[in-house]
Amino acid sequence: MTGSQDNIRLAISLRDGSLEKSVLFSLSQITSLPQDVTSVPRSSDLMTDAELQLTEDYDATALLEMLAAKKITAAELLSAFRKRATIAQQCTNCLTELLPEAIYDAEACDQHLAMTGRLMGPLHGIPLSLKNQIGVKSHLTNAGFVTWINNTSKDDAAIVKTFRKLGAVVFARTNQPQAGMHLETSNNIYGTTVNPRNRQLTAGGSTGGEAALMGMNASVLGIGGDIGGSIRQPAAHNGLYGFVPSPDRFSGIGVTVPTPGHDSIAGTLGPFARSLRDIELFCKAYSSTLPWIEDVSLIPGSIFSSSMGRQLDETRPLKVGLLLDDGVVSPLPPVRAVLQKVADKLRQAIDVQVTTFSPMDHAKGWEIIAANYFEDGGANIRAICEKGGEAVLPLTEWIINECQKGRKSVASSPEGLKEARDAYRQAYSDHWNQFDVDVVLAPIYPSVAGPHGATRYWGYTSIWNLLQYPAVAMPAAKLVGGVSTAELRGEYTPKNDLEKHYWEIYSAEDAEGLPIGIQVVGKRYHERMVLQASKTIEKALLAK
Amino acid sequence: MTGSQDNIRLAISLRDGSLEKSVLFSLSQITSLPQDVTSVPRSSDLMTDAELQLTEDYDATALLEMLAAKKITAAELLSAFRKRATIAQQCTNCLTELLPEAIYDAEACDQHLAMTGRLMGPLHGIPLSLKNQIGVKSHLTNAGFVTWINNTSKDDAAIVKTFRKLGAVVFARTNQPQAGMHLETSNNIYGTTVNPRNRQLTAGGSTGGEAALMGMNASVLGIGGDIGGSIRQPAAHNGLYGFVPSPDRFSGIGVTVPTPGHDSIAGTLGPFARSLRDIELFCKAYSSTLPWIEDVSLIPGSIFSSSMGRQLDETRPLKVGLLLDDGVVSPLPPVRAVLQKVADKLRQAIDVQVTTFSPMDHAKGWEIIAANYFEDGGANIRAICEKGGEAVLPLTEWIINECQKGRKSVASSPEGLKEARDAYRQAYSDHWNQFDVDVVLAPIYPSVAGPHGATRYWGYTSIWNLLQYPAVAMPAAKLVGGVSTAELRGEYTPKNDLEKHYWEIYSAEDAEGLPIGIQVVGKRYHERMVLQASKTIEKALLAK
Repeated sequence: MTGSQDNIRLAISLRDGSLEKSVLFSLSQITSLPQDVTSVPRSSDLMTDAELQLTEDYDATALLEMLAAKKITAAELLSAFRKRATIAQQCTNCLTELLPEAIYDAEACDQHLAMTGRLMGPLHGIPLSLKNQIGVKSHLTNAGFVTWINNTSKDDAAIVKTFRKLGAVVFARTNQPQAGMHLETSNNIYGTTVNPRNRQLTAGGSTGGEAALMGMNASVLGIGGDIGGSIRQPAAHNGLYGFVPSPDRFSGIGVTVPTPGHDSIAGTLGPFARSLRDIELFCKAYSSTLPWIEDVSLIPGSIFSSSMGRQLDETRPLKVGLLLDDGVVSPLPPVRAVLQKVADKLRQAIDVQVTTFSPMDHAKGWEIIAANYFEDGGANIRAICEKGGEAVLPLTEWIINECQKGRKSVASSPEGLKEARDAYRQAYSDHWNQFDVDVVLAPIYPSVAGPHGATRYWGYTSIWNLLQYPAVAMPAAKLVGGVSTAELRGEYTPKNDLEKHYWEIYSAEDAEGLPIGIQVVGKRYHERMVLQASKTIEKALLAK
Repeated sequence: MTGSQDNIRLAISLRDGSLEKSVLFSLSQITSLPQDVTSVPRSSDLMTDAELQLTEDYDATALLEMLAAKKITAAELLSAFRKRATIAQQCTNCLTELLPEAIYDAEACDQHLAMTGRLMGPLHGIPLSLKNQIGVKSHLTNAGFVTWINNTSKDDAAIVKTFRKLGAVVFARTNQPQAGMHLETSNNIYGTTVNPRNRQLTAGGSTGGEAALMGMNASVLGIGGDIGGSIRQPAAHNGLYGFVPSPDRFSGIGVTVPTPGHDSIAGTLGPFARSLRDIELFCKAYSSTLPWIEDVSLIPGSIFSSSMGRQLDETRPLKVGLLLDDGVVSPLPPVRAVLQKVADKLRQAIDVQVTTFSPMDHAKGWEIIAANYFEDGGANIRAICEKGGEAVLPLTEWIINECQKGRKSVASSPEGLKEARDAYRQAYSDHWNQFDVDVVLAPIYPSVAGPHGATRYWGYTSIWNLLQYPAVAMPAAKLVGGVSTAELRGEYTPKNDLEKHYWEIYSAEDAEGLPIGIQVVGKRYHERMVLQASKTIEKALLAK
């Protein structure tokens, strides 16, 4: 359709026009980009040392302290991140736009501080980036579909309103895949977002634009969405922290999804961050606004309320259950090596007690969640693609097919699918309760980031979406000091086709230095426990 | 089907065999029962004065104190209630069985107290009755369907286990209608439960057996279920207190429903009681067992947690929004008269501030909830009836038809129905927020209890199920001292067919002395606020 092509050109031109002009590459710069682009912001000589430092060296909490102490201004902080985001876009194709109004918002922060001596709010001047589907007033929101390119958001999404009120400077929107249902990031509008550490590899998804932007140190705090791994997996592929609470914690008002009314499996928004304390900052600031007054679908209480769920007993060690292998796809050598190092470190920590946590039929868990994803079997997704005159991408076909397969094997009626879901949830809870653990520590993905289009397994993340258990993703490889070449070349004997696929696309050479994540999982609505446990675990991993 | 008739005979014979033999009526007693049977336990001379007092004069909290002080034993308390329940059964057809094991449980309480000097638990020795659908180990659970007459519950329902642990003596199970989806109580097994105050009138439903039992003072604490009014409406028709929390507060494990996997509209269990403090006792005792550890679908926090939702500001008056008319069926004269008295009393109270709360399109609300009740359009209910060889009763046909009508007018797809539901919920929350009220006080039903089979409107209760707002039902007519004959004969001009129906079946003469309820409603998960507000309102209504 010519109309579609025009719309795509419009979307791309809007994005390109929004970039920071001073750091646009020349043609020769573009064509000579290295495979690993993480150093390009530095090597391109387009940013000052101060700007490089501001964007690389601090987490949001540290930046807040500098802003409060007037060591930096919100305007100069934003300027640095706008430049770096523009460079990140040219390196990884991660953006859908930069928001020009951010410049005024940053200036407003500076003026407010200068005139009143007080911060605009608990996130005063902190640049914040968003997955594209999160609406921004008067901006177009396509959520990865061609037919929605001209959809204007009439209002800010509720979470955007909230973070603006908190003083954050919402400055960038980032790419997501068609239907939001790939653990990669490719669509027919902007094309494919690539991994900053190796452009031949996926950045992960579905919040892959966000993760690549943060992986380039071109944002310090971001918001993504996760219904099967879409925050944790790209966080893992890019060395980031990410947080997925139980559902009904963050407002989804004003967030565009292709499947409204499909509530059998709930997704949720959640933050990407550079530190655990930034996740805590993000959530506490959000809860402080009492968002449940406006959004009646939310649990009306603070995310980290000490009145929710079981509390940690600080007079005894943290009880961590290690889930090393989900029994469906065994982790590949680098993931196994990192898990081994994590386990060793935890066993040395006096305030941690480690046990083995055995999974409960995760193959069935995948069948059930896949079957329940699309309550119409994927018909609506296909219809949206057709309306936009765009191809249903192979990874979209793949997940629709997994849904259809699941429906065949799980139940024939919608009610039957939900009964199976509820029975599995209760059985898994019973199973979990037998282990006497506070949290479970598990891989996020069986391998490192793979080549584009090759993602075939969501099970390590989607299992917790099915159960609605909150999880914190942490950059484990970085925390334990990485793995050696020998460990990357470890043995692996595929025991099924899925493992064979992952072994075939695995390259020990490419895996060198790639991030690897782990997740700390707690029971439903035990966000407080998950965060506290993550801190204890991180301390143990960083111990000499 | 002959098999069905045999099964029905079996169910009735099991029920009759379980009754307390010493108080069975003679044929002449049965045939000479008055219309109002509330005095029969006294007039029949089958119970001692002590037994009459024990069953009539106290709430559970008072009985607990007497048990703890060893003024009475659990065994004698149970014996009195077993007798009275047997009389209630013969008067109102409210039971499906008495549980013989209760005798041992009561004795165990007495022995425990005698030997240890301590109570068995916070509900030590309190007789507790249950709606039939709540499973009891090794007992048959038919939930009002012929085909399920021989279904043996393998285990106690989770809530039964919990209350047994708390020391309660589970002693009776009570009648419910076919499909659990009438606001009356009639099925093809046990027939119809009648109103103790006028056997020509309905006891209400679906927890009508329970409400009639309690209306006969033949139980002091009961558990029902509510998905559209099934606790509050029979509570209103029988002069009782009842409580419906938001969903996911009380465990539904082991409760038989005809529609497993249908989760678009959630039902919940909840207590019937003689006082607000008994509702508080019930809920606090339940939460103290941390039921969410076993049932992962529950919110993992106390029902009355002060960390959930907005809290009352005790430095200012309680803000009560009065909803006098839902705009669909105007309340009939006696209900209007009671509401007027309630409003007058509240306006006199210094710690209450009354405003008018306008409803937001409750007609649409009814369409949406009715359309969402049966996700299969009622097919499963029909199949269960067919399997049992039983007729689909007129009130079952009526609600299935309402569902079908709703589906036609609301949306054509299951996802569309849920989208409409979610949009209505959010719009209603926005509407509510405009009124600056802590709670809304509203009628429970447009009229007093009517003749059998004539219930045609659930809107005053179902609206809050749709919104998942918690509500306490209170016996308003009793609290304000009743209404006069003149008030019962007030004017009424029906403005639509539904109002015409209610006016046609209304009899001022029959209405004399009948109970009339009101409900105190709070926002989602604001159970604490609802309970606190109910106490303040009750105090105001009782003021001279």
